[in-house]
Amino acid sequence: MITTITRVEVLDVRFPTSAGRHGSDAMHPDPDYSAAYVILHTDRPDGLTGHGLTFTLGRGTELCVAGVHALAPIVVGATLESIAADMAGFWRRLTSDSQLRWLGPEKGVIHLSTAALVNAVWDLWAKAERKPVWKLLADMTPEALVACIDFRYITDAITPGDAVALLRDRERGRADRQAEIGRVGYPAYTTSTGWLGYSESEVRARCRQAVTDGWTHFKMKVGDDPADDRRRAALVRDEIGPDHILMMDANGQ
Amino acid sequence: MITTITRVEVLDVRFPTSAGRHGSDAMHPDPDYSAAYVILHTDRPDGLTGHGLTFTLGRGTELCVAGVHALAPIVVGATLESIAADMAGFWRRLTSDSQLRWLGPEKGVIHLSTAALVNAVWDLWAKAERKPVWKLLADMTPEALVACIDFRYITDAITPGDAVALLRDRERGRADRQAEIGRVGYPAYTTSTGWLGYSESEVRARCRQAVTDGWTHFKMKVGDDPADDRRRAALVRDEIGPDHILMMDANGQ
Repeated sequence: MITTITRVEVLDVRFPTSAGRHGSDAMHPDPDYSAAYVILHTDRPDGLTGHGLTFTLGRGTELCVAGVHALAPIVVGATLESIAADMAGFWRRLTSDSQLRWLGPEKGVIHLSTAALVNAVWDLWAKAERKPVWKLLADMTPEALVACIDFRYITDAITPGDAVALLRDRERGRADRQAEIGRVGYPAYTTSTGWLGYSESEVRARCRQAVTDGWTHFKMKVGDDPADDRRRAALVRDEIGPDHILMMDANGQ
Repeated sequence: MITTITRVEVLDVRFPTSAGRHGSDAMHPDPDYSAAYVILHTDRPDGLTGHGLTFTLGRGTELCVAGVHALAPIVVGATLESIAADMAGFWRRLTSDSQLRWLGPEKGVIHLSTAALVNAVWDLWAKAERKPVWKLLADMTPEALVACIDFRYITDAITPGDAVALLRDRERGRADRQAEIGRVGYPAYTTSTGWLGYSESEVRARCRQAVTDGWTHFKMKVGDDPADDRRRAALVRDEIGPDHILMMDANGQ
């Protein structure tokens, strides 16, 4: 079945997270975690849609929404099959529009907007294959996976041939790794315990809950005041105990 | 007299330059040279305004217009005197908005929009001093000039102290250099002779006119087809003669 993308819908979704200092760090003391949220509509009789988003901090989300609208003509009318057959070419088309590329092409607002669209295409593709995205990727041959990447600006670091060889070399362990993920899950850490603007009691309560929930890695935000960072690190360590991993992020402060 | 910025006006100005292939190069075959054009209105009884722009290629100019609107609250209500007293701080405020900085802060659309606003402030400042911008800068002490720059991300290459010492060292020749510019002008080159999409006859006619007008440096665009580049370079050289400078730009192709 041929799937044609018929329309790009974009939502400006904002959450007032700054009210609770959720997401606060040394560079972003009052973020409103938000998103330009893309829905790709198709002509499929089953109403299949692809969803993607680009993350923003509140103000300026409207710029990413406008950026998606500016890029949308490159996507509307394309078939999922033609995109999936040449994902690198699709990326190149999005980032090579001869007038829009002046605004980026692979940085800032245009980059964020491109990401929302490309994420939505991956979602559409995976849904069409009735798989989660990770499984769609994991089932690809090395050649197919490498063909999804535009190597234009990275061949000085790695070529398509290098990448295929690297993936081919790791192919042996693939089945074991998939089994392991199915068994124990994918390693993750939590940042929700240590946002910079949280009170001591909130950090303690959240660490305690996260330990109970089975987390083993805990990230805290630092970079405002060194003495305060030491004090907060001590209380996180006190809550998570000596065996769990304490991570720190100064966010470029 | 205190000058308060009361309103930021932004115009989406587009010129259909692609119709004549003006501005065409290897990466941008059909640019419509355009701009987000900023006018800073003030409360001055003489109606003083500051004008600035950021250059765009047509599509997406609306993103830069929206970017200026997003940054405008940082400028409206500020006095020219407070900005001029701490130009580096003003730049830092524009690029450090805790939510907007996620979109850049110093790249892409947000960077282009910041530039339009900052250019307009320089224009306003120079007009208030009744000088062209170059003269406003040339009349500054090394300390005052260096205080206009935000050194946040460049101190590994140059510090404010290094910069002051460098300018102090060159201070001796300043009067002579200003006199020379008044006498012979500032060296410049023309790109208008060699846009990539121009026909041979157009390149020849434009080179001939530019030589007549006194130009000594001529830039041509290259990077599409090497054989074609050689052919076009030969005809530009034929027109400008052996003593003028022929420059080439592949625009990252």
